[in-house]
Amino acid sequence: MNNCAMTKPRVVPEVNSMQMFRVSGLPDFKPDMDLAQHVIRALTAEGQSLQHGDILVVAHKVVSKTEGAVVDIEKVSASTQAIELAQQVNKDPRKVQVILDQSTRIVRSIKRAEQNEGLLIAEHKLGFICANAAVDESNADFEGQLITLPENPDRSAMQLCERLEAHFDCQLGVVVSDTFGRPWRLGQTNVAIGLARVPAIQEMCGNEDAWGRELKVTAPAFADELAGASGLLMGKSDKCPVIIFRGLNWQACNSSAKQILRPIKEDLFR
Amino acid sequence: MNNCAMTKPRVVPEVNSMQMFRVSGLPDFKPDMDLAQHVIRALTAEGQSLQHGDILVVAHKVVSKTEGAVVDIEKVSASTQAIELAQQVNKDPRKVQVILDQSTRIVRSIKRAEQNEGLLIAEHKLGFICANAAVDESNADFEGQLITLPENPDRSAMQLCERLEAHFDCQLGVVVSDTFGRPWRLGQTNVAIGLARVPAIQEMCGNEDAWGRELKVTAPAFADELAGASGLLMGKSDKCPVIIFRGLNWQACNSSAKQILRPIKEDLFR
Repeated sequence: MNNCAMTKPRVVPEVNSMQMFRVSGLPDFKPDMDLAQHVIRALTAEGQSLQHGDILVVAHKVVSKTEGAVVDIEKVSASTQAIELAQQVNKDPRKVQVILDQSTRIVRSIKRAEQNEGLLIAEHKLGFICANAAVDESNADFEGQLITLPENPDRSAMQLCERLEAHFDCQLGVVVSDTFGRPWRLGQTNVAIGLARVPAIQEMCGNEDAWGRELKVTAPAFADELAGASGLLMGKSDKCPVIIFRGLNWQACNSSAKQILRPIKEDLFR
Repeated sequence: MNNCAMTKPRVVPEVNSMQMFRVSGLPDFKPDMDLAQHVIRALTAEGQSLQHGDILVVAHKVVSKTEGAVVDIEKVSASTQAIELAQQVNKDPRKVQVILDQSTRIVRSIKRAEQNEGLLIAEHKLGFICANAAVDESNADFEGQLITLPENPDRSAMQLCERLEAHFDCQLGVVVSDTFGRPWRLGQTNVAIGLARVPAIQEMCGNEDAWGRELKVTAPAFADELAGASGLLMGKSDKCPVIIFRGLNWQACNSSAKQILRPIKEDLFR
């Protein structure tokens, strides 16, 4: 298996169609539940199996919950820094403390006059830049529970991938996703925060376009295309955290969601 | 048909699967060619038809080419402003002139020491913030031809949509897409720059999550999810500029890609 991150030029696979489908019937996930086992059970109950080349996109919240990457806000004490920042943006200082604990820096903080609660854009310890350092209370199990990113989303993705591969006896790929906003576009899309075997980027620099001219900077963000597409079926208000992609022709490799991060020297919006 | 932009809360449609497929056998598009007629021909030649609720994502380049939204760089004279900016980023001053002509402002300009050619991030006249104001030379018909965005991508989308609806006698949706980079993530994804009938955003504010808690800010960027997903099949180095989505349950509405633009007062990265 090659280390494909951004290394070698390759063209986008030639396939004419693909399918996406939900894994139905998954339970509410709690700490120490076996995610892989429940995915296997749910598929089997529907008469489904996984096939060579299937890619699963999994909402990080079920990974975080089963791994215990959750915080009870009642057990958090806010630092002076958190209290001051919380006053600026009118957030619960304990939630701000959790955001700070998850972050390496605050990129922007703002509360506009018409807003009740402001916004913190932070760089997560894992390098992702997003609102509230991905600390989230929606789909939590109780009021005051905050869900954080898994400690090592690539590892989580690989653990799930290997368990499913062993059961279904085929090579698979897994993308762990979260839902991010965008600086200049409204609405959110799912993006990749953890990868197993799935290429981060389809590097095309040096390839030729359809008319024979060299493509200089085209590098489709394959893992983010998958994550974004999963939102078409995943929804948010229901319990379909696992989406299966079938029919794509892709090459497994040693990948990491860190390969998607733009280097700091290329960041024009610090 | 309701005007749905960000108006009324609605849940994501309940569907368990969907399919995406390419329209094969399309020609190289040139000015004044009939895009709708060629899509109809290509589908018919393959024994395919369109069905109620199908959504087509169309790469803007074929729209731009058929509408003549192209510039021959040999016919451009660069202004003093363009020449100065071109020197800063080591670009052809005539290309910079076209970028300025397409823009309302330059958001960032930079050339790092190790780069041969630098980067201009611009706000396009239509409001989109992207590299080079979406002026592009890949997949152009000849060296020196620059492809710009269609004059009115929503109108282009609706013209194609209505032609296909009339032929196939069913209700459809069209997304015109372009390929954008992202400030903190490497690689590019397709985004929506023109819409016909397809909701820009699936507004979910006020709905409840799976556990009954109110979702405060969740608004899946439906049109961008479609555009992004299209990249899985569209590629860039081949000639598959039209992707069909089948199986989604969505509500047609009076939409516009302008509804995706974040208002200036919410832009934290000016």
